[in-house]
Amino acid sequence: MTNTNAKLIALDWGSTRLRAFLLGTDGTVLETRQSEQGASTLSGESAFAQAFAAITTGWTALPALACGMVGSQHGWREAPYAPCPADAAALARAALQVKDKLWILPGLMRDGAQPDVMRGEETQIVGALALHPELAAQSCLVLPGTHSKWARVGQGRVTGFATHMTGELYALLRQHSVLSRLMPADGSAPPSPQAFLAGVDAAREDGALSHQLFAVRTLGLFKRLPPADLPDYLSGLLIGHEIAHELKAGAPECLALIGDPALCERYALALGRFGVHAPLQLDNTAPAGLWQLAQTMGLD
Amino acid sequence: MTNTNAKLIALDWGSTRLRAFLLGTDGTVLETRQSEQGASTLSGESAFAQAFAAITTGWTALPALACGMVGSQHGWREAPYAPCPADAAALARAALQVKDKLWILPGLMRDGAQPDVMRGEETQIVGALALHPELAAQSCLVLPGTHSKWARVGQGRVTGFATHMTGELYALLRQHSVLSRLMPADGSAPPSPQAFLAGVDAAREDGALSHQLFAVRTLGLFKRLPPADLPDYLSGLLIGHEIAHELKAGAPECLALIGDPALCERYALALGRFGVHAPLQLDNTAPAGLWQLAQTMGLD
Repeated sequence: MTNTNAKLIALDWGSTRLRAFLLGTDGTVLETRQSEQGASTLSGESAFAQAFAAITTGWTALPALACGMVGSQHGWREAPYAPCPADAAALARAALQVKDKLWILPGLMRDGAQPDVMRGEETQIVGALALHPELAAQSCLVLPGTHSKWARVGQGRVTGFATHMTGELYALLRQHSVLSRLMPADGSAPPSPQAFLAGVDAAREDGALSHQLFAVRTLGLFKRLPPADLPDYLSGLLIGHEIAHELKAGAPECLALIGDPALCERYALALGRFGVHAPLQLDNTAPAGLWQLAQTMGLD
Repeated sequence: MTNTNAKLIALDWGSTRLRAFLLGTDGTVLETRQSEQGASTLSGESAFAQAFAAITTGWTALPALACGMVGSQHGWREAPYAPCPADAAALARAALQVKDKLWILPGLMRDGAQPDVMRGEETQIVGALALHPELAAQSCLVLPGTHSKWARVGQGRVTGFATHMTGELYALLRQHSVLSRLMPADGSAPPSPQAFLAGVDAAREDGALSHQLFAVRTLGLFKRLPPADLPDYLSGLLIGHEIAHELKAGAPECLALIGDPALCERYALALGRFGVHAPLQLDNTAPAGLWQLAQTMGLD
């Protein structure tokens, strides 16, 4: 199959998943493909090359641009992090060519006593700014997930960001900790927004996370929350702590959520408790970011 | 074997371990025994009765007093929590007789929107106050562990306390998280007090724990800490956050550490960074607490 309108192959290549987009004029998504050949499942350049060949089978040999863990130390080849502050031009300049017509974008780092990194989210941020130019002047972009990212944008550049291990802490505590003992099996209980918001409200009290987590156990022990509500209370505590810290200096004028719609909705609910109402919510903006960066690189 | 000086059988019966002490006049420990028959390994009254019979084989049928998870919902029988504030007399009054000559002590609870509980530590606290009466007027007693307890004592009573899941979070992150990937196998690296204190110092900066934890990864990624130092840095971050929160209102005049000497030493090192120097360190004070409570109950 060929598509004569196709201009770019855009790859969102994370740890556990590879997504390929065939983009046409103006970055329109003409076709989407997905495989489980994430960067963490592959080892060695030829394995990456084969995965690339497999997912682009039948597509015209167009310029291709990839973002995500494919550019990490254990990826196809390491594309060193670009430092903050960075704009699309800085990211584009740091792209690494790994084969004829294929480039890998760098991640982004914020240096300091405790450095921070992202890989893939920088491209989603570029996409968000391309789709919503009003975010470029000054905004706070939140990308919830296993490792949530809070990026601060000013004058079209990412000026700084922070990672929170919220999703991973939830999974660890939900599956392996003493807190899980009073909980029903994963996925067996209906969600409880009340319990979630009770957790968020508790987090707003400025207690220590390591202390407040133990309340998931005691509230279950004293039957003040039913077992089915405990996972949502735990989630509310963790997300609430993340937000409380990030908004300590005050809520930003312009905040947007980027990522999985259900998770963004959960964050939007919690943000309401901090006075941030109806933030902009954007689903995967990686294709838009890859298109924008390809334009900047002059690939099309 | 009989011991004519023996006065009391004292049982420190936790989740994973059972320790029995034969106490003589003035609470002297005449003999110590230990088994793996912790409360979490037993189910049903007869299993507990058998474990009790096994560990006291050959001892005279003396009055016996037990503390710990043996009195929990899943223990021998539930000894409901005594509420804070509580002194030795209140704990003694709430002891539950489960068979001829055998009593189980209650745990302690602090009520509130996020209630807190302890089982076993209340007895260690009574023991600490018996051994060091100068702690009774006003002190802060810290019992580090899987679930660390910070108890505030005033006029001989526990006036309040807080649990921190520090030890459990360390184990979860050390074994199951992304942070473990850059670390050597558990126990294979020599301890690094410098890395530990670097983690403590980072925690003093008042960052969010869920954010700061990610630095364990980035410091490894950028080779600013060698892999062997990462577990200690993680430990310092977690213990530092616990201490920073508990001492937010200022360091107490009188602080004592109770428990495993190596872990207490680690906490003492961290406390030094908060201006608390050379705190009193006490090893297991459960036998002294059980003796004191038996006296209060008139068991001897």
